[in-house]
Order: sequence, then C-alpha cells, then structure tokens
Amino acid sequence: MLKELKDKVFKANLDLVKHGLVIHTWGNASGRDRESGLIVIKPSGVDYESMKPEDMVVIDPEGKVVEGKFKPSTDAPTHLLLYKSWPEIGGVVHTHSSYATSWAQAGKAIPPFGTTHADHYYGEVPCTRLLTDNEIETDYEINTGKVIVEKLGKFDPLSIPSVLVCSHGPFCWGTDADNAVYNAVALEEIARMAFYTILLGKNEPISQSLLDKHYKRKHGNGAYYGQGEKSN
Amino acid sequence: MLKELKDKVFKANLDLVKHGLVIHTWGNASGRDRESGLIVIKPSGVDYESMKPEDMVVIDPEGKVVEGKFKPSTDAPTHLLLYKSWPEIGGVVHTHSSYATSWAQAGKAIPPFGTTHADHYYGEVPCTRLLTDNEIETDYEINTGKVIVEKLGKFDPLSIPSVLVCSHGPFCWGTDADNAVYNAVALEEIARMAFYTILLGKNEPISQSLLDKHYKRKHGNGAYYGQGEKSN
Amino acid sequence: MLKELKDKVFKANLDLVKHGLVIHTWGNASGRDRESGLIVIKPSGVDYESMKPEDMVVIDPEGKVVEGKFKPSTDAPTHLLLYKSWPEIGGVVHTHSSYATSWAQAGKAIPPFGTTHADHYYGEVPCTRLLTDNEIETDYEINTGKVIVEKLGKFDPLSIPSVLVCSHGPFCWGTDADNAVYNAVALEEIARMAFYTILLGKNEPISQSLLDKHYKRKHGNGAYYGQGEKSN
Amino acid sequence: MLKELKDKVFKANLDLVKHGLVIHTWGNASGRDRESGLIVIKPSGVDYESMKPEDMVVIDPEGKVVEGKFKPSTDAPTHLLLYKSWPEIGGVVHTHSSYATSWAQAGKAIPPFGTTHADHYYGEVPCTRLLTDNEIETDYEINTGKVIVEKLGKFDPLSIPSVLVCSHGPFCWGTDADNAVYNAVALEEIARMAFYTILLGKNEPISQSLLDKHYKRKHGNGAYYGQGEKSN
Repeated sequence: MLKELKDKVFKANLDLVKHGLVIHTWGNASGRDRESGLIVIKPSGVDYESMKPEDMVVIDPEGKVVEGKFKPSTDAPTHLLLYKSWPEIGGVVHTHSSYATSWAQAGKAIPPFGTTHADHYYGEVPCTRLLTDNEIETDYEINTGKVIVEKLGKFDPLSIPSVLVCSHGPFCWGTDADNAVYNAVALEEIARMAFYTILLGKNEPISQSLLDKHYKRKHGNGAYYGQGEKSN
Repeated sequence: MLKELKDKVFKANLDLVKHGLVIHTWGNASGRDRESGLIVIKPSGVDYESMKPEDMVVIDPEGKVVEGKFKPSTDAPTHLLLYKSWPEIGGVVHTHSSYATSWAQAGKAIPPFGTTHADHYYGEVPCTRLLTDNEIETDYEINTGKVIVEKLGKFDPLSIPSVLVCSHGPFCWGTDADNAVYNAVALEEIARMAFYTILLGKNEPISQSLLDKHYKRKHGNGAYYGQGEKSN
Repeated sequence: MLKELKDKVFKANLDLVKHGLVIHTWGNASGRDRESGLIVIKPSGVDYESMKPEDMVVIDPEGKVVEGKFKPSTDAPTHLLLYKSWPEIGGVVHTHSSYATSWAQAGKAIPPFGTTHADHYYGEVPCTRLLTDNEIETDYEINTGKVIVEKLGKFDPLSIPSVLVCSHGPFCWGTDADNAVYNAVALEEIARMAFYTILLGKNEPISQSLLDKHYKRKHGNGAYYGQGEKSN
Repeated sequence: MLKELKDKVFKANLDLVKHGLVIHTWGNASGRDRESGLIVIKPSGVDYESMKPEDMVVIDPEGKVVEGKFKPSTDAPTHLLLYKSWPEIGGVVHTHSSYATSWAQAGKAIPPFGTTHADHYYGEVPCTRLLTDNEIETDYEINTGKVIVEKLGKFDPLSIPSVLVCSHGPFCWGTDADNAVYNAVALEEIARMAFYTILLGKNEPISQSLLDKHYKRKHGNGAYYGQGEKSN
C-alpha cells in the first residue's frame, strides 16, 4: 500500500544523506497520505546503504503500525504530534545537521540576519524551551512534539517551517516530504551563515520591511518570484 | 536568437552550482550581447537540474522580454541597472555564497588582508548602505542596483568587480558572464580567508604599496603576470 | 592466517580515509581475534593507496610480530595496552581528525552539549593529562595507553568509547574495528558541533536526565532505538 | 628535455588542485634536476584544466628560459632564490590555501600545538617580516625569497619545510616536487587545527620534550616510524 508515498519518503531520507545533513542514522523523514491520513516513516536504526523503499513503515495517526516489517523511527511520536497539530503539513524531517544543531545546543533562536533567511522564514527560527525532567522521563518523544507546537504558537507552520529543539536539533516540515527536505537544506545553510555573521560581530536582525519584502516576494498572494505556480 | 550567449549564460549559471556558490535557486547569472545590447538571463525560480540553455530569457535594456517562455530572474532589474551604468561590463552574477553573504549580513566591507585580495580587487570589497523602507517597498530590485552603483562611485567597476549588498549578499560582474563567475569564485574564497584572518585578531589592511604591486602585477599596462594576453 | 580479520581491519583503515578522518598516513586501525587473542594492525607509514589486506600485520598481545612482512604501526603498543586493559573491546582506531584533535590540542574534554553526544557517550569525552617528560622519553606509546586507561578509570569503556590524548588526538574503540570506526566518525561530528556551540557562547552541559534518556534509549536493557538486536 | 621531471612537476601542480589547496591559478610547483641544476616550473597564468606536461617551463638557476613556449610562473624568482640558498631541496610549491594563508594574513607564526605539527615541523611554522616599500617596488619576487631565507636563518630547511610569507601565503619545499606537495597538504591541515585550537582558548605550544619525541620518531637517525627507508 501507498507505494508512491513510500518511494517519496525513501528518497527524502536518502536526500538528507546526499545533502550532507545526516551521517550514520542521525535523521528521519516522513510523509502523510492526504486521503487516508496514514503516515509513512523511516524504520528505526536501519542503515541508509541497505535501506529499500519497501522498508518504510506505515503507521496510523496514533502510531500503530499498519504495514511494515520494521519498527518505525523512535521519533515517530514527535512526527505524529506535528501532523495532528497542523493539518496543512504533509512532510516532516528531523536531522542533526551541524550548524542548525549547534544553534539548538546553544539554546538560541536563529535571528533573521539577511534576505536568505527572509526568503524562507517569516521571522526567526525559534528554539524551544528545555523539557522538564518529568517531560523527559515520560513520553519524551511526544513531549518533544508538544514543545515544538507550543513554541510555534499561533504562527502559520508553513511560514516558519522549522524549529530548533533545545539541546537536541532541528525539526523541519513542509507541504510534503520533499518540501520538508528542501527546508532542512535551507535551514542548515541559513544557520551556517548566521553563525559566521555572529562571529563577525553582528547581533541585530534585519528590518521588518526587508523581512516583509523578501518573504512576500516568494510567498502568498503578492508573490512575484518564480513562474507563477508555487515555487520554492 | 543569441544562441551562443544563451549557452554561455546557461553554463555560467551551472558553474555557480558546480563551484558551491549556489544551492536551491539562490543565484543567477546574465550576459550582455555587445552588438544588440540585449541581455540574456536565467529564468526565475527554475531548478538547475531541469534547466536547459533554451530556457534562458532574452530581455532588452528596459527589462522587456524579447524572447523566452519563462519570466526572467526576479533580480533582472538589478542586473539591468548595472549594465546601464557601466558600459564596460558584459556579465553579472548574484549569489548567496556562504562567506561573502555573511560579510554582507554583518554589514561590513572586506578589507584587503593579503595579496590574494590584491590580485583581484584594487581596494576593499565595499558593502552598500541599507535601503530605506521606501526604497524597499517600491522598486526594490532597481534600488538594489542603485545603491551598488552609488557605493562604487567613481571607481572603475572592473577594478572592484564585486559589491556586498548590505543584509543581502554579493553581486559580481566582469567582462562577460564567465568572468563574472570567475570573480564570484575568487570573492567567496577571499571572504572566507578574511573571516579567518579577523578571528585570528588582525584588523588592519595591507599597505598601499603591496596592494599596488599585486593588483598591477595582474592588471593594466604594467602587468607581467600570465602570458601577455589578458589573463585571469 | 586470520584472513577475515585482516580484510576487516584493512577496510577499517580505508574507511578512516573515506570518512575524511585521515590524510597522509595519520591514522591506524586494529582488531582483535576473540579466540586467539592476536591483534591485526595497520603497518607503519604505508600509503593507503598502495596498501593491501595482506599487508596487515599480526602481533601477539606483547607486540611480537606473528605474521607480516612489515613493521606494525608505531602506535601498536598503545593499542595493545587498551586491549589488555579492556577485555570487552575488539577494535581500536587512532586518527588526527580535525575537530577532535583540536579539542585534544586545547587540552579540553568535550562536554555533552546535546543529544547527539548523549546518543553515543554517557558523559563528556575526556581528555588525558599531559605525559611527564620521563613518560615521553621512555616507552612513550605504552605510556600513552596508560594515561588513556587512567583517565577512563572505572567507566565502562564501551559507554565512553573515545578519549582525547592531550596535545595529540583521539583514540576510539568498540566491539570490533568497524564499530571503532563508527565511533570515530561520530566523535568527529560531535567535536565539530561542540566547537560551534562553544563559539555561540554555551558552556554548560545538558542535564543528567537528558543524558540518561538519550544514552539509555540506544544502549542497555531499556533501549528502544533500532530493531531489537544491537544497533548503532 | 627533462621529460620525467616535467611529468612530475605537472603532476605536482595538479595535485595542489586535487587536494583543494589551489583554485583558479593561485599556486605553482617546481622541481630541480639534481644533475644539471635546471628548474622545471609551471607556466604563468595557464589554466589547470588545459595545461599539459609539455607546457612546463625549463629555466636555469638565473631564471633564463632554456625550453618552453610559455613564460614561467611570476613567482619563479622566489623559487630560484630558495633553490640557490638551500642545495638540499629539490622541490618548491606556493599556494594560497585557506588556513595557511589566513595565518599569513594575520602575520602570525603557527605554534606547535600538537603532535601532528611535531611530526612534520621541528618548531613553529614561521612567518616572515613584511617587505619594505622599496623591497616591494623593486625585485619583489626575489625579495620575497630573501625574507623567507632570512626568516629560516640557521634552521635546516628540511626540518621546517614551510614558511608563511606575511600578508601573502605559504611557500613549502621538500626533497622533490612531490614531497613539497606532501608538506603543503600537511601544512594546511596543521594550520586549520591550530586555528580551531586558538579559538578554543589555547595559546601555549607543546613542550620541547613532546616536540622532540614526535619529530625524531619520524626523522633522523633515531627514527622508528615507517618501514626503515625514509617515510613521510
């Protein structure tokens, strides 16, 4: 079942490796089937080199395995909470990419320092609060999802398509698995340039007008970047 | 029309990716036809992997599309203003390359810290002023061109073939599209080494005599680098 | 003799190069045969490009060459001391990988700044004390092993599978040569992110509860990461 | 003439590109024929992609072109001065490699922070004084060689096989062109790790006894690294 989505999610997982965002098994990608609401996700701890499309695991919104010979990614409950909270998203990825993870480890949001950032995020890339010891000890992965949703608050998740989980790393999402990978690639480069920018002595974000200009040039009704249909 | 120039501009755009200066669609290159004054430029938001030479867009100096099924790059008005201001240039490229963009985000010119810099730029790589809110809201891309030209002032644009647009990223130019790519590659490496140099505690530029020596060793009537004809 | 182990150790040595942890001949890997207690190790100063599986050297636990036309790695006495001290390990690698070595050169342990670290090390990656002049002048390589074992103290070596030798570089180990390479790859990325994290202004390690959660999610009886059998 | 040496010098020049030490035409390598004393060097400003072994230029110790259709590298006078001063060397390379050049731009010697350094340099990698305006204006390339030799002073050039030319970049040498490339690769990695080490807060070099141990383990009569014959 869901063969096409399995192929897409499989490819999304490999793309994380291809783009240098994941080594070992430090990442996972998932996608949602719009009709059935089922989620296809990477199996837990399986090597990327031996992984095949049919190894992808199908789970229902409560996390029950519907199809697949492997256990789903340990982070599946986090993915599920994001899907449940945000009907508009269709893909989620989690990586430990070097620069984004370093910002998460430092416990700092990434300020919008330039137009590259503004082209992709309508504001800073936020960093969650730390989980309490209780939240860590019980239902850790669900609580990780909860602090992400709590942090994003009333923002449109597609206008801020990534969050840094404090002391952990980035979660990114999008309209589908491929779009979530796209956002993860953008985030890592934005995190890298923000790191250099900070070291060059800059701490102030760009103006609201420049943020508006670039974000709205690519997104929403007034967008004039690309060829008319939705473009990345 | 302009098949040869389209091939060159197409290759210049791909070279930006090959040299690691562009990910996603974060860049664009253009070239000018000396005879007709027409400009060939990358289409907006088209993936590099699927792009073909015939997808390049031909525009006239006012930005009107003369040939091409796609819309030109959103940054076309910036390119056009540079071509109009500087008859001696034949190619323009814009990237969000990591180190050059970080200097732009920090709002700092790149001082000439060594002979690598002096071999390519006859002085610092300048950083523009910020655009005003009005300049951002109306004719943003034209105004981006204007602050570049304003910043370069009376300098020969071929002796300082790049500028950092504050809070945005580098624009580079040259005698043709290929030469502009050459300059973008040099700029990124110069920006990278300047970043390391600053972190090692150095803030003073090299002496005027060393700047003169290296720049003039490669450029102008007294040049003795290369094989006699113009060399990069 | 030990053809299979030679193949594994040969591959482990090449993998260090493939993963960018070793240039020139700056590294070595070894493995232990569980039955005989013999060690297979890289020959000293032999180029990776010309090296063949049959060039691996077989030594006994005292360092006597049992088979092989080459001298064993100069660091063999360090490997042997680790094998002798820790019966549970089956592989050792030594590299001069860039970030881990820089921490070793700075004489600083790598604090657990995030869950990537906690997934692999149950606490900081420790840094040994400096050797005394006497320890350097006589039996240097054995003494290098001694300060590693001294530093690890009563910790389970498989729960902290790497140490930084002060002013030198990392030694990593594992259940076999391949697992030791796995740990060396993880260490370098963890060292890299810890470096960025420090530069972003963070100095405090993560909480004990987060360290416990992530380490125990992947290791020991309560582990629920992976597919049930031991996973990396 | 000197076909074998031309092949070696050609390969050495390409190896600089392969190892990531040179982009554009920012580097050059040369080798000396022991019998005739003639030097084979890269032509000036010729692209690496189109360059062929027969394009290498043969010059005599005074810089007169003995064979070759191209002009020799602009830096040939610097190479020649090193060959003239140090009969024991057989190869010279010059690069603008990122980290070594950044130390040169900062005007700082690279302290021996660890055993990687001590394995290759018997002391710091020195940085020359700045040239005076007179030295820059007249015979610049010869004077560049002079400050290198002046800086190295009474040291054996094969025990400190590199110098940073202040505000410029590294010159490296060795027993032949290939060995000079080997040293340039080692220098860049040592410069990179020293940069990270400084940023981690370390400023003191290693002890003389550790420097002695590692340098002499690989070099001189007491060496016991490698297979008995001279090893890198």
